[in-house]
Amino acid sequence: MADSRRAVDVAELVEQARAGGPASARAVARLISLVENSAPVLREVAAALAPHGGRAQVVGLTGSPGVGKSTTTSALVSALRADGKRVGVLAVDPSSPFSGGALLGDRVRMQDHATDDGVFIRSMASRGQLGGLSAAVPQALRVLDAAGCDVVLVETVGVGQAEVEIASMADTTVLVLAPGLGDGIQAAKAGIIEIADVFVVNKADRDGADQVARDLRYMQSLGGRHSEAGAWRPPIVKTSAAKGVSADSGIDKLAAAIEKHRDWMTRHDVLAQRRRDRAATEIESIALGLVRRRLESVHGSAALGVLADRVVAGQADPYTAADELVATL
Amino acid sequence: MADSRRAVDVAELVEQARAGGPASARAVARLISLVENSAPVLREVAAALAPHGGRAQVVGLTGSPGVGKSTTTSALVSALRADGKRVGVLAVDPSSPFSGGALLGDRVRMQDHATDDGVFIRSMASRGQLGGLSAAVPQALRVLDAAGCDVVLVETVGVGQAEVEIASMADTTVLVLAPGLGDGIQAAKAGIIEIADVFVVNKADRDGADQVARDLRYMQSLGGRHSEAGAWRPPIVKTSAAKGVSADSGIDKLAAAIEKHRDWMTRHDVLAQRRRDRAATEIESIALGLVRRRLESVHGSAALGVLADRVVAGQADPYTAADELVATL
Repeated sequence: MADSRRAVDVAELVEQARAGGPASARAVARLISLVENSAPVLREVAAALAPHGGRAQVVGLTGSPGVGKSTTTSALVSALRADGKRVGVLAVDPSSPFSGGALLGDRVRMQDHATDDGVFIRSMASRGQLGGLSAAVPQALRVLDAAGCDVVLVETVGVGQAEVEIASMADTTVLVLAPGLGDGIQAAKAGIIEIADVFVVNKADRDGADQVARDLRYMQSLGGRHSEAGAWRPPIVKTSAAKGVSADSGIDKLAAAIEKHRDWMTRHDVLAQRRRDRAATEIESIALGLVRRRLESVHGSAALGVLADRVVAGQADPYTAADELVATL
Repeated sequence: MADSRRAVDVAELVEQARAGGPASARAVARLISLVENSAPVLREVAAALAPHGGRAQVVGLTGSPGVGKSTTTSALVSALRADGKRVGVLAVDPSSPFSGGALLGDRVRMQDHATDDGVFIRSMASRGQLGGLSAAVPQALRVLDAAGCDVVLVETVGVGQAEVEIASMADTTVLVLAPGLGDGIQAAKAGIIEIADVFVVNKADRDGADQVARDLRYMQSLGGRHSEAGAWRPPIVKTSAAKGVSADSGIDKLAAAIEKHRDWMTRHDVLAQRRRDRAATEIESIALGLVRRRLESVHGSAALGVLADRVVAGQADPYTAADELVATL
C-alpha cells in the first residue's frame, strides 16, 4: 500500500525500461499502466520518453478472428528473436474494456516467450472515452520504443474502424487472411486492403489458400498507387504459423518482408513522412482534447452565464457569444 | 437561376417573416434553408434574428412510432389556431437525411393547415455531421420564434438520444404514449419519463389505455423531484387525437396543460432558467465547433509541421507540442 502511494520516479522507470534484463519488463509494464490511467503523470511520462524514440518499427497485424493472428504474431516473435531483435507486442482488443496488467497473463500462445527478457507483451483495452482508439495506445507504443524494441507488433481484432486506426499508427501494416473464412474480398470493404503493406495468407496448406492469394493478386492488378514505378508492391506471403519457425512455415519470409518494407520506406523517405504525419495527427488530437476540457471548465462559469443572459435577452446571437467565449480561453 | 445567385437580403427576409401573410411563410422557409446549409450567411441570419426571440413556447412532442404523434400534433395545431395562436411545427426525423424544402409536402396529416397563414410547417433532417442533433435545429426554432409564433411544436421520432436532445431544446416536453405498444415502462429506460412535463395517453378509447395511465401514476408516486412542494407534477392527459378537436378528443385539455406548464414555468422563474441553460449549452457547442475548425485549418500548416518534426526528432513530447499549438490559435 505504501508502495502504490509513493511518488513515481518516472525518469528512473524509463532508465530501467531501457536497461534491459528482468527489471526492464517490470518498468515497461509500470509505464504503460501510467499512460493508460491518463493520470497527471502522463505528461511527465511522455516528456521522459521523448528523447528515446524512433528506433522501433511499429508493425500492425490485423485480420478477422479465426485467421490465426495470435499464432502468426507468436511465430513472428520467435523469428525476430532468433534474429537477435528486441520485440514488443501490444495486443489491442476493441471489444474488451479490460487492460492486462500482467505482462503475459491472458495470452496463452505467448507463453513460449514468458521467460525471454527480450520480449515485452502487453494487452490493452483500446476504446477511448470518445469512442475512438484510446489515446494511451500511441503512448504505450512510445514506452516499448523507448525500451529499445527493434520491432513492436500491434495485434488487433479486425473490426473496421479499429483496424484503420491501428494502421494509422503503424509503420507497416500486415493483413492476415486465411482460406475458408470468406475474407478475401470482404476485407476490401473496410478499406484495409488499400492500407496493407504486407499480405499474409495463413493456413496455407488448406484448400482455398491459393484462391485467396489469386484474389489478392487480381485486386492488385487493378492498379492504384502500387502500379507506379518505384512504388511498394505489397507482397503476399503464405504461412502455416502453427508450425512455428520451421523451414516450411513461411514465417521467416514474413519477417523478411517486414524488414524489406522498412528498408524501402527508409530509402524513399516514406518512414519519416509517415511518422511526421502521425505526430501531427496526435498533436492535433491532444490539442482538441485540451480545448474541450477548457471549454468544459467554463461550463457554469460567470463569463458563460453573462453571455447566455445576453443571448436570452436578444442582445447577442449565439455565434457572436461563442466568438467571445473562445476569445476568453 | 439569376434569383438563386442574387445576394440574400437577410434583414428583409426577417422582416417578411415577421409581417405575417402569405409572403411570411415563404420567408420562413427561406430562412430555415439558409440556417440548414450552414452557409456563411448563417451568422448573419442568427444576428438578424437575435432581437426578435423569446416569444414562442417551444413544445417538444416525442414518443415511439405508432402512438399517433403526427395526429396529435395536427389536432393540437387546430386547437391552438382556434385559440388565435400563431403556430410553428418542426418535424425532426433523425433517420432521414432529407430536409423538406416545401412547407407541407411530405406531411399528409398537416394538409388541413396548408392554406392557413398562421401555421408554419417544416420537416428537417436532424443528424449533424458529428452524429449529434444538427446545429440547424435551434436556429430553425429561432426563425419560427422571430416569425411571431406563440407556440412551436417540435415533433420527433422517439429514438433514445434524439428524444433527450429535443427535450433539451424545448420549454415543455410532451411524451405521447398509447396502449398496446408496450411503451409505458420501456420509455423509462431512455430517461424520457424523468424529462417529460406532460404525458399524453393517446388512443384513449382502446383497451389498455387506463393501464398505461395507472403505470405512469405509479411511477410518479415513487417520488423524485415532482414530489416537492411547489414542483410541477406532470399531468396525464388522455386523448383520441384522431377525432380532431371534438369535445371528447381531449385535445383541448392537452392544449390547456401545455399553457398551464408555461404559466407555472414563468411564475417559478423556470422558463428563464431553462432558456439561460439552453443558451449556455448552445454557445459552448458553437465555440467547440469554432475551435475544432481552427485546429482543422492548422492541419498541414507550417506551424504544425514544425511541431511534428520536433516530436519525431525526440525534441518535444506530443503534449508539450499540443500546448504550443493551442497557444498559437
